[in-house]
Amino acid sequence: MVGSVVEAEQFVSTKPNANGVMAAQILSVPEFDLAAVIAEPVPPLATTDTNLWEEDEEKKIVLGRNIHTSSLEVTEPEPNDDLTGDKDAYMASVLARYRKTLMERTKHHLGYPYNLDFDYGALAQLQHFSINNLGDPFIESNYGVHSRQFEVGVLDWFARLWELEKDEYWGYITNCGTEGNLHGILVGREVLPDGVLYASRETHYSIFKAARMYRMDCVKIDTLVSGEIDCADFKARLLQNKDKPAIVNVNIGTTVKGAVDDLDLVIQTLEECGFSHDRFYIHCDGALFGLMMPFVKRAPKVSFKKPIGSVSVSGHKFVGCPMPCGVQITRIEHINALSRNVEYLASRDATIMGSRNGHAPIFLWYTLNKKGYKGFQKEVQKCLRNAHYLKDRLIEAGISAMLNELSSTVVFERPADEEFVRRWQLACQGNIAHVVVMPNVTIDKLDDFLNELTEHRAAWFQAGKTQPCVESDIGRENCLCPLHK
Amino acid sequence: MVGSVVEAEQFVSTKPNANGVMAAQILSVPEFDLAAVIAEPVPPLATTDTNLWEEDEEKKIVLGRNIHTSSLEVTEPEPNDDLTGDKDAYMASVLARYRKTLMERTKHHLGYPYNLDFDYGALAQLQHFSINNLGDPFIESNYGVHSRQFEVGVLDWFARLWELEKDEYWGYITNCGTEGNLHGILVGREVLPDGVLYASRETHYSIFKAARMYRMDCVKIDTLVSGEIDCADFKARLLQNKDKPAIVNVNIGTTVKGAVDDLDLVIQTLEECGFSHDRFYIHCDGALFGLMMPFVKRAPKVSFKKPIGSVSVSGHKFVGCPMPCGVQITRIEHINALSRNVEYLASRDATIMGSRNGHAPIFLWYTLNKKGYKGFQKEVQKCLRNAHYLKDRLIEAGISAMLNELSSTVVFERPADEEFVRRWQLACQGNIAHVVVMPNVTIDKLDDFLNELTEHRAAWFQAGKTQPCVESDIGRENCLCPLHK
Repeated sequence: MVGSVVEAEQFVSTKPNANGVMAAQILSVPEFDLAAVIAEPVPPLATTDTNLWEEDEEKKIVLGRNIHTSSLEVTEPEPNDDLTGDKDAYMASVLARYRKTLMERTKHHLGYPYNLDFDYGALAQLQHFSINNLGDPFIESNYGVHSRQFEVGVLDWFARLWELEKDEYWGYITNCGTEGNLHGILVGREVLPDGVLYASRETHYSIFKAARMYRMDCVKIDTLVSGEIDCADFKARLLQNKDKPAIVNVNIGTTVKGAVDDLDLVIQTLEECGFSHDRFYIHCDGALFGLMMPFVKRAPKVSFKKPIGSVSVSGHKFVGCPMPCGVQITRIEHINALSRNVEYLASRDATIMGSRNGHAPIFLWYTLNKKGYKGFQKEVQKCLRNAHYLKDRLIEAGISAMLNELSSTVVFERPADEEFVRRWQLACQGNIAHVVVMPNVTIDKLDDFLNELTEHRAAWFQAGKTQPCVESDIGRENCLCPLHK
Repeated sequence: MVGSVVEAEQFVSTKPNANGVMAAQILSVPEFDLAAVIAEPVPPLATTDTNLWEEDEEKKIVLGRNIHTSSLEVTEPEPNDDLTGDKDAYMASVLARYRKTLMERTKHHLGYPYNLDFDYGALAQLQHFSINNLGDPFIESNYGVHSRQFEVGVLDWFARLWELEKDEYWGYITNCGTEGNLHGILVGREVLPDGVLYASRETHYSIFKAARMYRMDCVKIDTLVSGEIDCADFKARLLQNKDKPAIVNVNIGTTVKGAVDDLDLVIQTLEECGFSHDRFYIHCDGALFGLMMPFVKRAPKVSFKKPIGSVSVSGHKFVGCPMPCGVQITRIEHINALSRNVEYLASRDATIMGSRNGHAPIFLWYTLNKKGYKGFQKEVQKCLRNAHYLKDRLIEAGISAMLNELSSTVVFERPADEEFVRRWQLACQGNIAHVVVMPNVTIDKLDDFLNELTEHRAAWFQAGKTQPCVESDIGRENCLCPLHK
């Protein structure tokens, strides 16, 4: 089906190619008959599916359980839509309603570590462009509609934060924290192909997903009650696998408890078990706290002056961004293990994704410039203060709660009502829930939440529900259940 | 470092936990001394790096070779920036200049298959929200600021296009074509863990990247001059690996030549070699043409009524979108091989990325609704017509050129000047370049390009450059070099 719109067989002759394989030859035909080529629309139109969101106010999207029943169907335009404006009116009404839902949902949001407080109005002018940072940020592709100059500015800022020289780092802006983790673990595996992956039980699931994707042996390490990696158990496991190199994920803030693994103790444990620096690779998953830690005294410092291989952080969390994104920084010498030339893009391909969102770097560049290190320091301060406020008020109200030092993730007993959990978008695991105090979480918002929680809680207990014991989750000292208080 | 801001050691006692491992106990300390916690900004500020973009007009970003020298540095705000407005003014000037570059670069763009013609003004209101479709599109997460209802509407549309029932498909909106390919090949590997991956030499590099990431055996198949997979070679390779299942990538439009692999012949070849349907898995990489093919008569039909496992397509290509995105559709029964429960998100995790851009589904939903099947049909028609126009004019001018039937990718001899190649953002490989005729590529734009090309070409040849022979790239019939014309 080459070089011609007429049935290919008529014009194609075959002859053996250099390898002796029969290859179709191409004859070019000057006339092009469009009518013979274009097919009628193939798929049958959608039939009866009514839009439940429109018709049934009970089935609000935000609370739906089977989202398929409340999808916003794509419909074929009517021939006279241009005249009547009906379709435009319908779409505008859907969007207006959706915007209202987003405003309400953004207001009642506490459980996920996303800073929802941003104003990128100055960047709205760029939405008209298809900005794509294909491949490596440091090697220009022929595709000119990119934002590499912003991206590299942002990467330089992070490399400086984590103490790696400009000519010694490589990195890129990812689509999310998961991509950073997938990249970090992949680099580790390419550097140490028969390495065993070690990660604590409270590690984000993307690390275990990486192990499965990459067909790596993976060992789960116990955690302390705080959520930190238990280096006694780590030591025992290392000694069981002494003959193989170690690829270690270190959590700079676990997902659920905000616990920070002790990087220095992890390195010391590796050394004590006889692992020389060329036999281990450490990836630091700094999804949330990777950007907060540098501004906190006594926090275990994330620095490439220590024997670590890569650090990743999310951009849509502490920084705040309309879409998920992240930053991945590694040592340039590791990248050669991973990259190869792809002439098509005029760009080496050491990223996971290839095509990359070119807007995200501009959002990050904008915020970093506006806030600077000092601005982030202030926000970290505010978050820690508000997190302590929340924890103290919870405990005063008799609610079991824990706050790790240096963290803004407040863990507490899971509310007894799923409706309440969804209303405040709390992330839950077993008997515990958490609130991640981000810059957009004010004392006022926390007071609203606390008032609603204590009010509902009284009602739940009157209705016969009991306070769960969370000793095994957050320690006896933090458990205020009838048995432990 | 838990539950307290005072040095942890003072307050931590240890006792063996259930597994006999020493675990830190947590003592909570009521007082919180912020000053003791917040560190001064850690990183030294950036030093001398001047902004070359500002100061050296010669080093235009768009033509830079070492982008690191022209990065847009992030600078720390001055204390009095709020009063003087200097920083805001600087950033506004950078953005205005950047916008101008984007306009120029968007205007001179032919080489990449991106439809740059879109107007999403109606969606600008949504840029203020951090929209994230965490995890599975069909299972709601507790995070409420999502756009699953739009996403599922878009997925339904594509499932209908590729003939898979609503209750039989699973899919999601990806970050790009590469993610779709990574997902499709991963599903194939999970379904057939010891399968060998087959892909033609002209396959997009993301498929070979997948093989390396996933530690799969991979066999490269020869191609015909058109760029299609050579099924004679495919047969020979299959017979060499008869004892192992086959995972096959089928190109619905190769990257360079826009060649469409003959899906029916691929299936027939598998069957002839004795592969039953449960011993092969076909992923269709429809990056660009996956959406165009259904509107072209006699095109090999991509349909789940045939024994295929997954189809992916890019959203930023034919549809047009400000950021890269894509659609991945597979059979729901395959997904169970891949997914597992992650309570944290209240969402199964069968995607590659976890956190996903919630804006992209709304862009796609908006365009699909506006254009409908009929609108896409019209645009396909326009693209094919303009592609033939371009090919015919090139040949008239004595320039070697090829256009695969049913494709809008015009392949021709590589211009002899890299400056020209970059100006028009042509993608090149060896002696050939290509123009992908997208809906935003008008006859006027093609005329501009043709005029400039023929004018420059005369000058190149006067300066002693010669017309390259492209027989081995696009066939003798299409080669107009001195030897073959």
